[in-house]
Amino acid sequence: MAVNVSRIKRTLIGEPFPTHQESHERLDKVRALAVFASDPISSNAYATEAIMSVLIVIGVGALRLTMPLALAVMGLVLLVVFSYIQTILHYPDGGGAYTVTKDNLGETPSLFAGSALLIDYVLTVSVSVSAGMRAVTSAVPELLPYSVPMALFAIILLTWVNLRGVRESGTVFAIPTYLFVVGVLVTVLLGLVRISGMFGLPYPVNPVHAVEAAAHPASTFLFIWLLLRAFAAGCTALTGIEAISNGVQAFKKPEARNAALTMVAMGVIAMSLFIGITYVSTSLHLIPYEEESILSQMTRAVTDGLPGGRFLYYWVQIFTMLILVLAANTGYQDFPRLSSFLAKDGFMPRWMQNRGDRLVFNGGIITLAIISSIVVMAFRADEIAMLPLYALGVMLSFTLSQSGMFHLMGRISHLKPGETLKTQVTTIHYERGVWWKRALNGVGAVVTFVVLLVLIATKFTEGAWLIVIAIPALVYGFRAIKRHYNAVAANLSTQTFDTHEMREIADAVIVPVAAVHRGTLRALRYASMWSDNVCAISISTDAQAKGRLLAKWAEFPEITDSIHLEIIDYEYRDILTPMVEYIINAANVTYAGMLVTVVIPEFIPERTSARFLHNQTANLLRSRLRHYDNVVIIDVPYLVQG
Amino acid sequence: MAVNVSRIKRTLIGEPFPTHQESHERLDKVRALAVFASDPISSNAYATEAIMSVLIVIGVGALRLTMPLALAVMGLVLLVVFSYIQTILHYPDGGGAYTVTKDNLGETPSLFAGSALLIDYVLTVSVSVSAGMRAVTSAVPELLPYSVPMALFAIILLTWVNLRGVRESGTVFAIPTYLFVVGVLVTVLLGLVRISGMFGLPYPVNPVHAVEAAAHPASTFLFIWLLLRAFAAGCTALTGIEAISNGVQAFKKPEARNAALTMVAMGVIAMSLFIGITYVSTSLHLIPYEEESILSQMTRAVTDGLPGGRFLYYWVQIFTMLILVLAANTGYQDFPRLSSFLAKDGFMPRWMQNRGDRLVFNGGIITLAIISSIVVMAFRADEIAMLPLYALGVMLSFTLSQSGMFHLMGRISHLKPGETLKTQVTTIHYERGVWWKRALNGVGAVVTFVVLLVLIATKFTEGAWLIVIAIPALVYGFRAIKRHYNAVAANLSTQTFDTHEMREIADAVIVPVAAVHRGTLRALRYASMWSDNVCAISISTDAQAKGRLLAKWAEFPEITDSIHLEIIDYEYRDILTPMVEYIINAANVTYAGMLVTVVIPEFIPERTSARFLHNQTANLLRSRLRHYDNVVIIDVPYLVQG
Repeated sequence: MAVNVSRIKRTLIGEPFPTHQESHERLDKVRALAVFASDPISSNAYATEAIMSVLIVIGVGALRLTMPLALAVMGLVLLVVFSYIQTILHYPDGGGAYTVTKDNLGETPSLFAGSALLIDYVLTVSVSVSAGMRAVTSAVPELLPYSVPMALFAIILLTWVNLRGVRESGTVFAIPTYLFVVGVLVTVLLGLVRISGMFGLPYPVNPVHAVEAAAHPASTFLFIWLLLRAFAAGCTALTGIEAISNGVQAFKKPEARNAALTMVAMGVIAMSLFIGITYVSTSLHLIPYEEESILSQMTRAVTDGLPGGRFLYYWVQIFTMLILVLAANTGYQDFPRLSSFLAKDGFMPRWMQNRGDRLVFNGGIITLAIISSIVVMAFRADEIAMLPLYALGVMLSFTLSQSGMFHLMGRISHLKPGETLKTQVTTIHYERGVWWKRALNGVGAVVTFVVLLVLIATKFTEGAWLIVIAIPALVYGFRAIKRHYNAVAANLSTQTFDTHEMREIADAVIVPVAAVHRGTLRALRYASMWSDNVCAISISTDAQAKGRLLAKWAEFPEITDSIHLEIIDYEYRDILTPMVEYIINAANVTYAGMLVTVVIPEFIPERTSARFLHNQTANLLRSRLRHYDNVVIIDVPYLVQG
Repeated sequence: MAVNVSRIKRTLIGEPFPTHQESHERLDKVRALAVFASDPISSNAYATEAIMSVLIVIGVGALRLTMPLALAVMGLVLLVVFSYIQTILHYPDGGGAYTVTKDNLGETPSLFAGSALLIDYVLTVSVSVSAGMRAVTSAVPELLPYSVPMALFAIILLTWVNLRGVRESGTVFAIPTYLFVVGVLVTVLLGLVRISGMFGLPYPVNPVHAVEAAAHPASTFLFIWLLLRAFAAGCTALTGIEAISNGVQAFKKPEARNAALTMVAMGVIAMSLFIGITYVSTSLHLIPYEEESILSQMTRAVTDGLPGGRFLYYWVQIFTMLILVLAANTGYQDFPRLSSFLAKDGFMPRWMQNRGDRLVFNGGIITLAIISSIVVMAFRADEIAMLPLYALGVMLSFTLSQSGMFHLMGRISHLKPGETLKTQVTTIHYERGVWWKRALNGVGAVVTFVVLLVLIATKFTEGAWLIVIAIPALVYGFRAIKRHYNAVAANLSTQTFDTHEMREIADAVIVPVAAVHRGTLRALRYASMWSDNVCAISISTDAQAKGRLLAKWAEFPEITDSIHLEIIDYEYRDILTPMVEYIINAANVTYAGMLVTVVIPEFIPERTSARFLHNQTANLLRSRLRHYDNVVIIDVPYLVQG
């Protein structure tokens, strides 16, 4: 049975990798862009629609405000991108928000950053997978009722691939990312051409003809409030930007410079698509509705009636789906890695820092899979409904990491030319022009903080409250775990340890016996070999069974003669209680301060499936004795065929 | 933690009972009737409707055939009742179908009887609880959407009551049973009065006016087929009849005679209600439909417009619900008892014969609760849909037990006056008039067998196929379990046991060590006390950790000097495999034929909730070593605060 489980595991997960085989592939800029940018670029599948689905509340006419809001989001993205370049250049070994915050602002802020990011990584998986399935159901509406099982299947697939260990060649990632970018760019350009009437192409047919009407909100306050909410919704475009700062070491030399350039390219590409999609879809007066995504509507309208149009439409839908699955995959890279950092620092269960056979963090991968599946089920794979929970974490971590950089720049400004300063994780040199870099980080911190407040305020009742509660709750959990580990370490420490203060070991062995058979005889013999003071104890609930036991006992004097047999009469059914009481009395009273040994005879059916046929007495006894520090348990097995 | 679990259990289940406190209450006939007859009497809540819901397929006019079919069912019931009286008189210690069949026809037929009855007991619970909830929703249609959760709640309640141990005074059972009987009798009589126009009472208003039309089935064959199906449906009235034969010992002296008289009374009462309900409801031209049961329709029509009519209506509905819950409760008595018989004979897991603290068969009760809940959910608490699965088991067990009685009567007929014969479980004396009793049992066996075939044939595609597969499958399972227990007993038997052929115990102890701390030091010390040949083994995956381990090891020469430390370098992550291989190699090669001892140091966090924070290495190692007969495992605990 054990062999079979392990064989199944091998088949599914693959043969183990030796530890030294950790991947050290270096990525050129073209591949790196694809690996790191799938998350922010894929946000284009839903970011425009997220803004529109808030504006539609004001009225169809308000949809024309999508474009200015998209430009505001773009401004924010560029600000974050440029201030993150500073992080990359100063933390070439990897400067995720957790690391930068810990290095500059201390433990508590870093735990907030870590907690915020972990939650966002979960949502990256749930949102991306759900949006990916929406790309499928937009093209094939018949699949709409199956979006939840499809999304769960995608999560299972991602989990499986990641447990096997992705040895990504970069190329695998590059293909769908670039084909998505090309597909959407072509669509946007084609849309612009058709809208402008160039080359004599006809104006695209809008599938849903909406009556354009003036926006008429109930009040100015409500109008501004809805604008802020729409802007907040668009901020989902910012998720995933921090990924490059974590992965500087994956770039070819010079790592930091290449990473910074890739960051810029990522910002430019993602924002071109974002603005392009927003412009074309608002020009076509598209209206968001649940059955079909805006991107699908736009592509359908633009490609309609053109030779090869269907091909382009399916191209965009297929690569939208694929890039979204890749984006979900970045969650599978980030969550387990950040968990392992936190586990290494003692804030998460230690097993989360263990790599499995395939050198991946199994614990983190499985935890992520479970939580993101729950989110998908709770929201019935509706990514637009999940968005209010999303982006909050990322914005908090931006604020914290920018504040950290602001602090670091302050320290650099005190350096004289040629001086260097070592922080916990990086080395900083004197540099010129610090003041404007510091200003940039400062502005970045303030702006992202303001946006964070806007996000919390406008999305609060729609679900953001959950995140507002969850982030500090997680931080509390981190601290509780750390306290526990500290206590354990202090308890186990040999610092002040003197071997003379160790517990004495009592020369007394207790053997619980239910009947005399080959298994118990073996256990009794084993016990007598270790000690001259063996006591067999049996609980008797009826006189007949007692008589049988005594008769059997007398049959094997070679073994039983040297053993004291104690039979306790008991009139209740629960025979474990008097057994445990006897043993604990021996340990706490008779041999107080010493270790007492209990030998448990246990017969083990060869077939695992037969285990449920046997009384779980031995297991229950063991689990009840586990709580006692002064009881040593010896399992003497007796394997039984059949 | 353990303390809390046990406290919760005490609160829910109550304080344990001493073993000698088993209930030996003797029931007078009035109470016994109520205790044993709730199941057959409660069938009246749905038996008439079951017939009608098949006839309606032919046409509304065919409903007039309900009465003749009900009379046929009654004939069958009376035949079974009278031939069961023979069983009661010859098996005064309790003659369930399993016992009678085993005693007369042998093991295989008895297993079929047992399997059939177990399945039917599960259905007794599912059907009765669902029908009980239908009595509620017929009166309060607003509750209709909640019938599944209500039914599950009723099952949980029954489970809880039965786990506490029902110390039924008989009186508790008598009240709802008799009040149901009285309520329905009054309704039926009132119906007869109103239909006949006596005392000037108006003719009842039929809520659904149906046009009476001639029956026009597609073909004669189909017509007969549907008649047979309707008859088969009515046979659900037969379930629960065998209960008295199991419980003869619960009667006051003379037990067998009182039991037989009670059986007759039960048959008469149940059939009076059955025929009465059928007559009144067909006279009123009621039509079965899902939202309201026939019994509820009839009561509503009969009581309509009369002073106190609403009171009588609610009376009938409330006591219908209560008697059905009591009927479900008989499943909770019968299933665990029969399971315990089968377990005692080695055909079911042995723990099913253990009584819990409260002297009830916990294992059987919980198994029954789980399976009947699944049935309720699968059929969405629609008892009419469950009926095709029901009554098959009971009919098979009737056939088998009647055949058994036929066989027994044959043996009696060979006795001479004054002679007695002992079977495995009963003593038979010479008696007169055996031939007609034998004929009665023979006719009973043949008729129930024919009805069984009709049931299978007519209900097959509606779900009976499931039972036709399940019964032999269960029998196969029983046999497999028995084989396993026989093999285990042979393996453990000391019959041919010679203490000289026992395995030697190797004077060698292996201690797996990951790091040197207070916990491992305690384990090492314990090991050195038992043996001079202790080997600590550690798996090293990196050189740094190895250096630390060696340094720590050297710090405690008082303990470690006498111990050989073996460090195995390993380049994969799964450190358990080389550990297990080393130990198994020692056990199978170095100390071949002997018992090898492994000491596992294990630190145990005081709080159970903190367990998940620690590596499960010790648990995994233990579970992988469990499969080896020649490895003894010693757990040396080290309790850690925090």
